[in-house]
Amino acid sequence: MRTIDRMVAGFRSFRAIYYEQRPERVASLVEGGQKPEILLVACSDSRVDPAILMNAEPGELFVVRNVAALVPPYAPDGHYHGTSAALEYAVRDLKVQDIIVLAHSSCGGVSALVAATKHETMPDREFIQPWMSMMAGAVGDEEPAKASQDTLRQSIRNLRSFPFVQNAADLGYLNVHGWWFDMKEGALYRLNEDDGQFVRIE
Amino acid sequence: MRTIDRMVAGFRSFRAIYYEQRPERVASLVEGGQKPEILLVACSDSRVDPAILMNAEPGELFVVRNVAALVPPYAPDGHYHGTSAALEYAVRDLKVQDIIVLAHSSCGGVSALVAATKHETMPDREFIQPWMSMMAGAVGDEEPAKASQDTLRQSIRNLRSFPFVQNAADLGYLNVHGWWFDMKEGALYRLNEDDGQFVRIE
Amino acid sequence: MRTIDRMVAGFRSFRAIYYEQRPERVASLVEGGQKPEILLVACSDSRVDPAILMNAEPGELFVVRNVAALVPPYAPDGHYHGTSAALEYAVRDLKVQDIIVLAHSSCGGVSALVAATKHETMPDREFIQPWMSMMAGAVGDEEPAKASQDTLRQSIRNLRSFPFVQNAADLGYLNVHGWWFDMKEGALYRLNEDDGQFVRIE
Amino acid sequence: MRTIDRMVAGFRSFRAIYYEQRPERVASLVEGGQKPEILLVACSDSRVDPAILMNAEPGELFVVRNVAALVPPYAPDGHYHGTSAALEYAVRDLKVQDIIVLAHSSCGGVSALVAATKHETMPDREFIQPWMSMMAGAVGDEEPAKASQDTLRQSIRNLRSFPFVQNAADLGYLNVHGWWFDMKEGALYRLNEDDGQFVRIE
Repeated sequence: MRTIDRMVAGFRSFRAIYYEQRPERVASLVEGGQKPEILLVACSDSRVDPAILMNAEPGELFVVRNVAALVPPYAPDGHYHGTSAALEYAVRDLKVQDIIVLAHSSCGGVSALVAATKHETMPDREFIQPWMSMMAGAVGDEEPAKASQDTLRQSIRNLRSFPFVQNAADLGYLNVHGWWFDMKEGALYRLNEDDGQFVRIE
Repeated sequence: MRTIDRMVAGFRSFRAIYYEQRPERVASLVEGGQKPEILLVACSDSRVDPAILMNAEPGELFVVRNVAALVPPYAPDGHYHGTSAALEYAVRDLKVQDIIVLAHSSCGGVSALVAATKHETMPDREFIQPWMSMMAGAVGDEEPAKASQDTLRQSIRNLRSFPFVQNAADLGYLNVHGWWFDMKEGALYRLNEDDGQFVRIE
Repeated sequence: MRTIDRMVAGFRSFRAIYYEQRPERVASLVEGGQKPEILLVACSDSRVDPAILMNAEPGELFVVRNVAALVPPYAPDGHYHGTSAALEYAVRDLKVQDIIVLAHSSCGGVSALVAATKHETMPDREFIQPWMSMMAGAVGDEEPAKASQDTLRQSIRNLRSFPFVQNAADLGYLNVHGWWFDMKEGALYRLNEDDGQFVRIE
Repeated sequence: MRTIDRMVAGFRSFRAIYYEQRPERVASLVEGGQKPEILLVACSDSRVDPAILMNAEPGELFVVRNVAALVPPYAPDGHYHGTSAALEYAVRDLKVQDIIVLAHSSCGGVSALVAATKHETMPDREFIQPWMSMMAGAVGDEEPAKASQDTLRQSIRNLRSFPFVQNAADLGYLNVHGWWFDMKEGALYRLNEDDGQFVRIE
């Protein structure tokens, strides 16, 4: 059975549960609009789906997913910046209270970046290397797990380079969180920005 | 109770289920790496989480989420293109079999775009308007629901402008799907590329 | 991994979800007591768990489970009548609005009964045969699937032999439902008491 | 919306998930028959559904549910003994490896029993009092929570009065567990038969 057929069948279960069996939550979200408290920046990796990892319900998480869960630096140059646009919309329009950047171990994008630093480049890739290169200064010749933590540290710094983020944080309206998921151990860590260390929270 | 605390508690349930109660699936994904069959491009909207909508399991969906579920046109210019990087990685490295672009009704990004076409612009937004402007040619002064279908049609055309997508599709290795979710009705439609019409599938 | 260890791990996920992540429902049930609308009489069979079959939440179903989902006839003789005690408590104390008796295909208890009618008895069983014998008059030498429908018809008749059930039903406070689950097809049928036929409802 | 309508809608989600999206588990159970490792004797209380409490999947738990999760003493007298019949079938035919008797705090049946010991009887109840009276010798004028633990101790003793249970346990084929669920705290305890004390396991 192909996964796409499983997904269509899964949609039937979604509708049965959220529209027919317990329609209150979705009806309220359709009528009243979304009011998520959290913007989550996560990786596209199929193994770290935020709604599964956190048992979320519809309406709880406004989610950006890109390769390696990267936040680029503030650069209002008129180009297409998908992650920055979502960030802006979440903070300025939806007025989320928390931004979580969720990185993880065993990240393919980070491994590609580490390989590139060793000149083990993939010469015919047009997009993944420019994309990961935004983290080139943050990562050295190191273990991928450590590199993924370094990219998370840089993403948090980049996040704070957006004036609307830092201002909201300074005023106490917004909290910034760096979370790192150890996929092998099933453990969740948070970045302590004061000393740059990761502390296990679960 | 704050949503972020709910998410930490939800992570405990995830670990209890996927690492302790039924560890087979995740163990296999950690050992063997991810092998998703599907790349899904979805919207960041908190109400249309793909894993919830399709009752997905870890490992099934490689997911990009950005505002309005947009696919930009092919532009290998060395800039940061998050969605294109994910697309490249999914098709060329993970060798997915299906790409689904999932748009939906009541999309805030599309509403902003429609407002902008009427000169009801939000003057101090630096990112969301450049981002949505990639769809400016696809959308007119129209109902937001219709506009979200027009952006989906354009995303599918953009998707096919990537040589590695179109080549894989031509060779029969890759299928491209445009899906549209009617949030009010709980109905799922697919785009028929031949005539541009949407056909209800669920 | 033994199932009992899976169950302990599963309990951890239950607590994480229902006590930590979304405690409102259980807190209300603990404070306010249970107020189920439905008494469900179901089979002990591990494949037909009512909460799984109907995606129930805590507090929704008051459940009796015995071999073959049988309701015995009214017999207030002072003996231990577990099913009758639950029935009495549900109707008179909890004041449920609906009683569902849920039988199913491929029922081991019914197969034992059919075998016994053919003198293929299991001579050293002390309890299962007396228990199933309450249905001896309802079942002949027939297909087990048909026999399970015959036992359901008899259970519904037995249910109506309880004065407090029939009185509440006559007054319109209580509805009696016979449901039959076709395990192979995944289909749900209801008994039409007027003509004794089963009508597919799902 | 009535709960019975929610249950029919819930059945649609069950079928979509277990028959259409991920049919492997149920197909195997239909083809190969049930092979549960565990017999669980639980209470009918709507708040302590075993499949929800332990996040069970179809096929994992063979379940008896009666008021107060009682196991009667061994009495092969030819009467209808629903719980004993299920016990016999689970041990002798299904050959379960574990029997769990799961009692809980805030049990209405136990409260009725305690009330009866204080002569606060409910004079017109024909079944619940005979049923609970099987525990009369085990319970005194005490707190209901303590009384529910006393009934569990007695159920375990009764369980061991069945020769086929005790013999299988003596031979090491079968394990007997008394579990007690503290509904207010969300905690799970097990009975240590050696000293009669309850030890928290979760």
